[in-house]
This record gives sequence, C-alpha cells and structure tokens, in this order.
Amino acid sequence: MDSTLTPFFKPRGVVVIGASTSPEKLGYGVARNLTASGYRGAIHFVSQKSGLLFGNQLYLSLSDVPDPVDLAILIVPPNATPEAIEACGQRGIKAVTIVTGGFREVGAEGAALEKKCVEVARKHGVRLLGPNCIGTLDTHLPLDTTFLQPPMPAKGSVGFISHSGAFAAAIIDWARGQGFGFSQIVSLGNQADVNETDVLPEVAKDEHTRVIALYMESVSDGAKFIQAASEVTKHKPVIALKVGRFEAGQKAAASHTGALAGSEAAFDAAFAKAGVLRAETAEQMFDWARALETCPLPSFALSGGLSEAERRRRPQSKGGMAILTNAGGPGVIAADSLETNGLVLSQLAESTLEALSTTLPPSASIHNPVDMLASASPEAYAACLKILLQDENVNGVLVILPPPPMFKAEDVAEKIVETLKSDSLLSGKPEAYPYGHTSFGTPESKPVVIALMGSTLVEEANKVFQRANIPTYPFPERAASALGVLAKRAEYLESKQTLKVSETFRVSEPKDNSVDSLLTAYGIPTAPIKLARDENEAVTIANEIGFPLVMKIASPDILHKSDVGGVILNIKDTASLKSACTKMIKRVERLIPPPQIDGVHLQRQISGGQEVIIGMVRDPLFGALMMFGSGGIEVEGLKDVAFALAPLNQAEAESLMRRTWAGRKLKGFRSIPPVDEESVIDALIKLSHLAIEHENIAEIEINPLRVLGKGAVAVDVRVKLRA
Amino acid sequence: MDSTLTPFFKPRGVVVIGASTSPEKLGYGVARNLTASGYRGAIHFVSQKSGLLFGNQLYLSLSDVPDPVDLAILIVPPNATPEAIEACGQRGIKAVTIVTGGFREVGAEGAALEKKCVEVARKHGVRLLGPNCIGTLDTHLPLDTTFLQPPMPAKGSVGFISHSGAFAAAIIDWARGQGFGFSQIVSLGNQADVNETDVLPEVAKDEHTRVIALYMESVSDGAKFIQAASEVTKHKPVIALKVGRFEAGQKAAASHTGALAGSEAAFDAAFAKAGVLRAETAEQMFDWARALETCPLPSFALSGGLSEAERRRRPQSKGGMAILTNAGGPGVIAADSLETNGLVLSQLAESTLEALSTTLPPSASIHNPVDMLASASPEAYAACLKILLQDENVNGVLVILPPPPMFKAEDVAEKIVETLKSDSLLSGKPEAYPYGHTSFGTPESKPVVIALMGSTLVEEANKVFQRANIPTYPFPERAASALGVLAKRAEYLESKQTLKVSETFRVSEPKDNSVDSLLTAYGIPTAPIKLARDENEAVTIANEIGFPLVMKIASPDILHKSDVGGVILNIKDTASLKSACTKMIKRVERLIPPPQIDGVHLQRQISGGQEVIIGMVRDPLFGALMMFGSGGIEVEGLKDVAFALAPLNQAEAESLMRRTWAGRKLKGFRSIPPVDEESVIDALIKLSHLAIEHENIAEIEINPLRVLGKGAVAVDVRVKLRA
Repeated sequence: MDSTLTPFFKPRGVVVIGASTSPEKLGYGVARNLTASGYRGAIHFVSQKSGLLFGNQLYLSLSDVPDPVDLAILIVPPNATPEAIEACGQRGIKAVTIVTGGFREVGAEGAALEKKCVEVARKHGVRLLGPNCIGTLDTHLPLDTTFLQPPMPAKGSVGFISHSGAFAAAIIDWARGQGFGFSQIVSLGNQADVNETDVLPEVAKDEHTRVIALYMESVSDGAKFIQAASEVTKHKPVIALKVGRFEAGQKAAASHTGALAGSEAAFDAAFAKAGVLRAETAEQMFDWARALETCPLPSFALSGGLSEAERRRRPQSKGGMAILTNAGGPGVIAADSLETNGLVLSQLAESTLEALSTTLPPSASIHNPVDMLASASPEAYAACLKILLQDENVNGVLVILPPPPMFKAEDVAEKIVETLKSDSLLSGKPEAYPYGHTSFGTPESKPVVIALMGSTLVEEANKVFQRANIPTYPFPERAASALGVLAKRAEYLESKQTLKVSETFRVSEPKDNSVDSLLTAYGIPTAPIKLARDENEAVTIANEIGFPLVMKIASPDILHKSDVGGVILNIKDTASLKSACTKMIKRVERLIPPPQIDGVHLQRQISGGQEVIIGMVRDPLFGALMMFGSGGIEVEGLKDVAFALAPLNQAEAESLMRRTWAGRKLKGFRSIPPVDEESVIDALIKLSHLAIEHENIAEIEINPLRVLGKGAVAVDVRVKLRA
Repeated sequence: MDSTLTPFFKPRGVVVIGASTSPEKLGYGVARNLTASGYRGAIHFVSQKSGLLFGNQLYLSLSDVPDPVDLAILIVPPNATPEAIEACGQRGIKAVTIVTGGFREVGAEGAALEKKCVEVARKHGVRLLGPNCIGTLDTHLPLDTTFLQPPMPAKGSVGFISHSGAFAAAIIDWARGQGFGFSQIVSLGNQADVNETDVLPEVAKDEHTRVIALYMESVSDGAKFIQAASEVTKHKPVIALKVGRFEAGQKAAASHTGALAGSEAAFDAAFAKAGVLRAETAEQMFDWARALETCPLPSFALSGGLSEAERRRRPQSKGGMAILTNAGGPGVIAADSLETNGLVLSQLAESTLEALSTTLPPSASIHNPVDMLASASPEAYAACLKILLQDENVNGVLVILPPPPMFKAEDVAEKIVETLKSDSLLSGKPEAYPYGHTSFGTPESKPVVIALMGSTLVEEANKVFQRANIPTYPFPERAASALGVLAKRAEYLESKQTLKVSETFRVSEPKDNSVDSLLTAYGIPTAPIKLARDENEAVTIANEIGFPLVMKIASPDILHKSDVGGVILNIKDTASLKSACTKMIKRVERLIPPPQIDGVHLQRQISGGQEVIIGMVRDPLFGALMMFGSGGIEVEGLKDVAFALAPLNQAEAESLMRRTWAGRKLKGFRSIPPVDEESVIDALIKLSHLAIEHENIAEIEINPLRVLGKGAVAVDVRVKLRA
C-alpha cells in the first residue's frame, strides 16, 4: 500500500500554505473546502496574517505548524514556490500540491521556475502534484484540497484522474445534475513530477473505487503507462478519454506502415494492449463509468468470447441481451443500438415465451424486444423483468421506460428496484463481479440498465433508480452503449483467462548483417535477391536458392525492365538459366545509349498464394507499433490495415487477422483458395520480437509477404535505420 | 395551402367522439387537452352520456353537433370505429384522427377492421390519421388533440413527425427538461391512410416551423418520399432518424452489388438525394434541430463547398470555425470534435490576433482555440467573441463555458447574449438565413453555439441562453456536432445552387436484345465476347471487333483453360489469329478424354488502365440503387464501394468517386498513372438512366469496367432479370 504518493491520498495532517481570509482568493477556497470536507486528520493553515480561519489558527511560518503534517497545499506566488517547497522539505513533508499557475504553461521563465521546484523537491525526496492543478479530493475519507465551489461531489465509486482541472471541475458539477458521485478525483496540472501513470495504481488501490475514468491529453511514458494500466485493468476497469487528435499533424514516413501509423493508432494499440476502454466522448466516458460502477458483468463465458463477426453470425447464441419496453419505437432504437455495440438480441427460451404470454395481453409482443404495450403496469414491468432474467439465453436486460400513459414512472421504478432486490433473486454469484464490488445482484448477476426517457415526468423515477444504484440513461442508444461496455469488459477479462502463452522460439545468430539474415535468424523465411555478374555466378546462386527463379537485369539505367526484355520468369533449370542470362545481357547491351550493366538479379520465384503487408514503425511514445493488412502499392489508399503494439502474443496477432479483410481472406474467399494463416501470425509475432530486440531499426516493412498453402515468404523487405 | 390534410392542421371546429368524464380514459385526456390548449375554433364533444365536460356540452350523437366541425378525434372501441367514420362522412367531416389502438398491430382481425375503416373513409373522401396514434399538436395555433399529460410542450420552431407515438410522448417530456419547444407534432400510428410523406409538406408549410425532425421506422413509398422531401429541403432542413436496421436481415443476391447493397445503404442514398440530414441517434436529431432552428448558417461560399478531404488538406482556408474557451482541456476536446465533424479550425487573421492580445493576459493563448484562461471575466468573453466574429476567416464560433472559478456563469451568459444582440452587430444579412427565419444575427450571420458544461453551477446561465434562443450543449462534442450540421446544411443549399444540369445524351435503338447492344445503345463501350466455330469465323469476328484479341477455348468440359493451352493473349493480326485458332483447337482435341469443343471465344484485349466495378440493384423501396467502387472478386471483402440512387447527376456521380478509394485512385497514385475519370462518371450516369428505363432488369453489374487513359470499357457484364 505504501508508496511515496500515499501522503497525497491518506495524509495524517494537511497544511494549506497561502491560506487566505479573502473569499475571492484561491487560498480561501482551499481552506474552506478542507475544513468543510469533514477531513478527520489535522488541518493547519499558514498565512501572511495571524488569526483564525474556519476555527483553525493561522500560522505565520510553516515551522510553527505542529505535527502531524504529511501533505502541503501551496497557493503562493510562483516566485515564492521553490522556497515554500524547500521549507516543506526541511519540515519533513513529503507531498506537496502546487495549486498556483504561472509556470511552464506561460512560457520559458515559468518553465525555469517549474524546473527549480522539481530540483528542490528531489533534493528532499518530496513528490509534487501540479503546478497549475486543482488538487485532490476523496469523498469517502473524506478529504478535499480543491478550491472548487461547494458542495463536494457525492460519494460514489468512480475514480477520476484528469490532465485538465477545468474539465474535472465541469464534470464534478455535471455529475451532480446526473446524480452520480466519485470516490477520488485527482487533477494533475503541469505534471512537473507526479503524472497520470504514477497516480493510476494509487487510485486503483482505493477500496471505494470500482472504476477509473482517465482524461488524457498525452502520456508521460508510453511503456510505463501500458505496464501500470495492464496491472490495474486486471482488477478494475479503466476508461480513457484521449484528446488532442487534431494536434497530431502529418509527418514524413519512409514506409507505408509509417505513413498509416499515426499517434492515434498507437494510442488505440496501447489502450488495447493495456485493456483500457477508450471512450469517444466525455459523455460516453461517464455513461460507461456509471454502468461499470454499478452493474455486474454479463457472463460471456456462455458465448465463449466470440468475436464481433462471430456473434453476428450466431444471433441465436446464448450471448444476447433482452429488451423490455412498453412501446415499439424505443424498442426498435434499442435493438439497432445493441447491434451497433456488437451485441445481439437473445433468442428467448420457450419457457420464457410461455411465461410472458401468460403475463401479457395477447396483443403484446413476447419476442425480443418484448413490447408490453403502453398499458404495462408497474407489476407487468416487474414480472416480465424477472422472467427475462431467469432465461439462460439472456445475459442482460435493457429496460425502456418512457412516461407510462396510465401509471406513474416512479411506481414502475419502485417495482423494478424491488424485483432486483428481492431475496429470491439475491442469489447472484459474487465471483461474477470480477472487479471486486458487490452491489446487489440480479439472477446469475446479469446487468440491468434503464433507458429512462423524458424529463419532468420521470424525475421521481430517476431518483428511485439512483438511490438503488441502477444506472439510467435518457435514450436507448446510450443505455445500449453502456451494456456494450460491460460486454467488452467481460470479454477482456475472459481473454486474459484464456490467453495462450506464446511459445518461445529460438533466434539463431544472423549469418551476416543483411536484412535477409536477420529475418532468417528470427525464423521469417525470405526470398533474397542476389546479384550474379555472369552466368557462372548465376548457376552458383541458383544452386543456393533453388529453382524456379526470376531473373531481372541489374542496371541503374533501366527503369522499365520488362519493356526491354529485362525480366524472365519461371526459369526452371540450370540450362535455361545459363541461356537466359547470356541472352538477357546481350539483348540489353545492344540498347542505345548502352546502359551500365551490373549483371542479373536472381530471386526464387514464389507463385500463387496471397500477398499481405506486415510492418513496424517505432512510435515515439509507445515503441514498436506493428501493422498488418492488404499490401501492394495501394496499401495507403485501401487502408485495410490494423495495428498492435509489440511484442505480439498469439491473441493479438489473431486479432489483426480478424480486423482486416487481408486477414479474413487468408481462410479463403470464393475462388481464392485458403492459405497458411498461422504462418502469417507466426511471422508477425517473430517480427515484433525482432523489433523489440533491435532498437536501431526505425521502420521495417515486408511488402509483400507472400502467404502460400504452407508457409509464407518475405518477398520484398525495406528497412529504415534510426538516425 | 389547401389540401385534403388542411383540416388536420387548421380546423375551424373539432369534435371529440368518445369524450369521457372518467379521468382514467383517453377520451377524458383528449377533451382536457383540447380545451386547455387554448384552441380558438369550435370544440364539440360526443359521448355516451349527456352533460357538461370542461364547460362544453356533451352530445349523444354526432348529428347533434353544430357547425363548424372539420376534424373528428375518434376514441371509440375498434369495432365501433368504421361506423363512427361513416357518421363523420355523412356529417361532412373530411379529417378523422383515430386514437384507439387494436387494429393491424394486434393481428389479422384488427387488420381487417383497419381495412374497413379505410374503405368507409374513401367512400366519403375522408382522410384518416392513425389508428393507434396520439394525434396532432400545434403550439402556435394552438391546438392539442393528444391525450398526453399536461402541460403542452413549449412553443418552438421544431416540427416533429413520428411513426412512434410513445417516442413522441417521451421526446415532448424530454424537450421540456432541455428547454426547447415545438411548432407542430404529428403522430402517425398505423398509417392506414395518411403517412409520413403526406404530412411532411404540410408541416413544412407551417410558418412557425423552421426545421423538421422525422422519426421513421419505414417509408411508405420511396420515390414519393424522395420527391416530397426534396421539395421541402429546398426551403427548410429535414432531419431523419431512421430506425429498424437490425430487422434488415441478410438476403440472397445475384451480384456483388446486390450482396453489398442493404436497405440501410438505400436509405442513406435516398436521404442524400433528398437533402435529408440523417441523425445517428435520437439525442443527435434534437441537438441538430436546436441548432438549425436558432442559428444562421455559416457562409460556406467562402470555402467554396469543399469536400471533407479537401477541407482537411486546406486547414488554412476561410471555411473554419473558432473556439473560445476559458480552459485548455475542453478546448482540445472541441478542436478534436470539429475535425470529426469535417470542420477545421480557422487560421485567425493578424488583426484578430492583435486585438486578442491586447484584450487578454500575456499567458492566454490567442491562437485558435482561443484560451482566455480560468480568470476570464464576462467582459473578456464578450470582447473576444466580438473579435472572433469580426474575423472573416471565422465562419462560426463554439464558445465553451464551464463554471468559471471567479465569476458566475450567468453573468458570462448575459454578456454573451448582449454581444450577440447589440445593435452594431445586428447588421446580419437576412438572406444568409436560407430557411427563411430571422432570429437575431451575429456579424455576417455566423452561428454561435455554446458548450455549457456543468449542472447546478450553470443552471441560471442555461436559462439566459434559452431565453435568447442560443443553443447550449452539455459537452463540446455535441456543440461541435451542431456546428457540423449547420455546415452540412449550408453545403447542401450551396450544392443545389451550383448544380450543373446533366447533359442529355442520345440513346440509340439497340441492335438486338443482347446486353452488349443495350449498353452500346446507351453509349457505354463494351468488349463483347464472341464465339467463332472455326478460323474463318474468327477472322470475320476479328474484323468486327478489332485487334489485339484474347482467344479462349470454348468448351464446357475445360475448367482451367490456361492449363491446357486454352488461352492466348495479345493476338495482333489475322495471320496470328488463324494459326492460333487452328493450333488451339488441335491441341485441345488431343486431350483424353476428348472434350466437347464449341470453337473459340474472342474478345478485344483491353490492357492497362484501372479496373472498377459499377452496378445497380433494384431496391424494393427506392428503385435503382447504383454502386461504384473497387472491383474484382474481392469487392465484397474490401467493401470499398459507395451507393447513390438513380438517376445520377454529375455531382452525385462525382461524390461516388470521392467516397471510394477506387474513385480517388482514378486521378493516379504513386506509380499508378491517372486514367479517364470522366468516362467512369459518364458510364455511371448512363447506366443509371438505363436502369430507370429498363425496369425488367433486377440487377446489372459491370465488373470490371476497365478505365483507360481515354475512355472506359465494360469487360464483363452480368444481368439478372426480374422474376
């Protein structure tokens, strides 16, 4: 539990340096919030004037402050900040939050000052949060070191880490209106010292935190982030909103891989590797967070962790969701949205259909989406929900509740809550809550989310659901997205359980320092191109690389080789080789003006099969980024490519196959025969290890890798070394 | 103005047949709402008991009801409905809304009853709305024929047509909470008679309606819908939420085009053709509606209606948007989202930067996004907004307002509203409001949308903006999407202005009833395959189609022709042709067992260029649906295709080019030389006319169309006739 960051989260005492009695000052706000938060440790204020503030003595100097004091909140002018950190260091305070702005964000002078702060802090082993941040907040401890307008956010289970203080402040207020709360909030500011990767495991440790929302504008250290996040996501879900796409401009690249791989592709790959759920919008991040903090995960074990495409092909599988509605239209919207989120509608069991038909009027639709009609009573909602939850084909339920024409929405809400809380149904399996929380269960721990449509007419119902910790969304689309993220999280945890350990493979010593030798050493078959200066050399080379062969004239002066008879395919034996070589050289020699002729290039002719591209570009943040997809010269236009970070394991390489047409086609398509998919996966894994172990390579691209009925051969390889 | 639907929208008197004094009955709700709505025409109630209801006499029979009465609202049991319609017909009432359910939606018996209702109505020239609907509502007239719980929605300028009554009811309540209103609402129910296409022009006629939101589960008649919607969108924007994607299952198809074209592709193409803006979610539909009802359109004339790709390439163009914020994080989110919505950040003019730098503190960021810092005062917001709006590079402004730490959000809101309303700025050009409304203007009529982030701390600010009719959104992403739809609408109107009229082309009489002749008649060059039984016939054919030629053995028994020497390419003259023909037949005759030989197939050899696919499938709802994209056998896997409805005009065909890699590549890419793009556009337009004029063709596909440096040739054509 203990780390150098612990004093930020569990201080025995806090001192506010720069506390102020003027209500318009930040130092007033911090003092006010710290006192009002209910923090049970020691509270100390240091100010320029002595006296009392919120019942606490104002000290003129930090040295006068009594023990215990583990955390200092600095609201002093930028120029005075290094000195204040020095004083903290001398006082034995190991954690300092710098609220004040005016550092790196305002230019070179501020940056120098920020650097000085870090130097002073390092000297004393002090950790710094900020500068230019709004501090930390813990609703459960409780502790509030921010200057935000009261009241504190409600208690909740969402831990929120933000690179932007203003965004955090806005979200806190928005959450109040949405009726959800937070466990901890950390605003990172300029990250002079403590960054998002440092803080992530600390917030994850918090027993009240069930899900972590992470607003990121950048990453401090890509590899460390992946490592830290991977550890956290084993136990608790992490949702990231990564912004700043528009800043990632175009860049020069030596390969197709380099041209296609952007910073966003690298972030996507990093989040995938670390099991971080990437939200598209701020609203989505918290829609997801609310589902993950309150709902059990669907037991996708039933559907065997099917890929999206497989699930679509098998709508009858047991991995589906049910929709319960009192109106057709919103039910149709929900059904569309479940599909958009990669989910399917459950095929309801016969017993379910029977039970529904005895419960509902004959004109109701008992097939999924279950439409109870506008007349549905609170009791009908409850009864049908119970029936659906008991169906083993149903992995979760999306309940739609627009203002019921004949009843009060809050009465429906009460009945739904009652159903979910009833003793007989509380037999939920605790182990089905893989992130360690145990909100009340539904049968076999199935998630239930509510699309509560409307405003004034459903206000009371919303309160009922909020009190019961059941997430509501104003539209079916957002409720479906919430179910979708629960399924994604379940699949991720399942994929971790079933992950095959990649077989280790032997890397031999490269014969020489050619690219071919390097690939060969890693077990990636190549078809090297060899220069033969005459027919005798050609025969020697042919004996080495084998027939059939392709021969091309080797001349820097000839651009279109086939136009001058400079390409001969399918040379099958030594006799043909000799004759072809002599004839080709003679033919080309006769050209006017006579070109420079170096000899002929020979390559083993690899025919048939399919062509793909595999490549690597070294991302500045996350390292070796692997690409796979449709090759050829149109790769940049077709964009049929997918990315993942090295080193690849089997599952990650397989996912590259599923995500691209080039990969799916390997299994054969219409008249295109199937080829050796496993050999591509093998080459990708090996190339990813090669990339990790050879940091001097900036980009490497095999285009094409020719995939045969058995095996795959790198036909053309390009490498760019690091400058 | 007058149509058979006018009595639904402007009745001189309304009768409620089935008015009830029991508050739990729908007939009570309708009577209550009609009375409370403030409707100024005559109100009559027909009930089973006489007496008074809401101050109006209850008649026992419709025949007792005095004039005027133009519209009847029926809330009588289904079985009694045909008789009630009969009575209306006899009474001279030409418009009947059937609120009651229990018709087609409950089965065969109900369907029969519904059919009877229509028969009775037709006999008397009566139009029917419903059954199973919630009726109509006009906040301005005012008129409310629904049974929904009061109060009526607020007055507004959004006309809302819905296939789902429950969805409409939920949206009305949700809108109340969001602070926006409606002009008219029409719930269509079972559409026994009146459908969405009938109603659309009627709602569009309403002077208070500035934008129409359309919730669709289906379309009654595709062609009529496109025609009606195209007329409406010339004057007023229409937003559609089309649901029911999940119901569109897989279907058998004879061609790639058929396999790739789904009902959703057809709807997309129909909306594009009609200028209807398609929303992805319910929330988005109304986010867009609010922007379109209140904001002027950006003057995209400045950016010349650039395509998305072109705009991305020209971020310095004058078509950009500005972001004004008091915090960096939300500014970055907004910038990302503008890009996602196809917009770019304006490059601010030098004079703008100077003005901003004198207004803002030195540490503020004066470049777009303009970050005024957390200390930004209401006056700073106002001053900077004014500066930005005066920059001719700025086409619109997204203002971000999280709770300001030092000020009240409502004070900022007041200052912003003041700025936008100030006299000096009211010089907006009215003609820049192409949909005919004149809310107050911003300089040069630039749209301003607000991302008002938070909840309780911005509640008052929200009211200020609502009163001033300035749209607010809780997150920058949604505000950016609103600006995006304004730009889309502006581009659409501009594209209509600049649309080139397609040149007419002559269609000659087909020589015979072959596909080749048909294509030739429409001016689409083909390379027909001809059978020659011997070398003499081969020469005759060669003289007809010209050299070079491809020759293939014509035999039903030989699958892999090239394996047995059954394919000869590049035959250049008569001598080679004769010899090749004789040799090929002799060679194949020697095979054991001897195959059946019909002769040889000859085709003009078309080399070089690029291959694309063009095709048509007849959509059951919208007719001839054209496809263009990357051809070959992988077309279904690559999915590099785009769709548009026939007949295509030049702009629509060009858009197919822009939307696909196959189309973009025609201009050349790296070593791939450019080819004759115009010939593809020409072939697409001609094929679309062929499809329109030959309804017996179910599917037609040219794959490949070989596009050369000059011209394009249909190499392989498949046709499926209608059953």
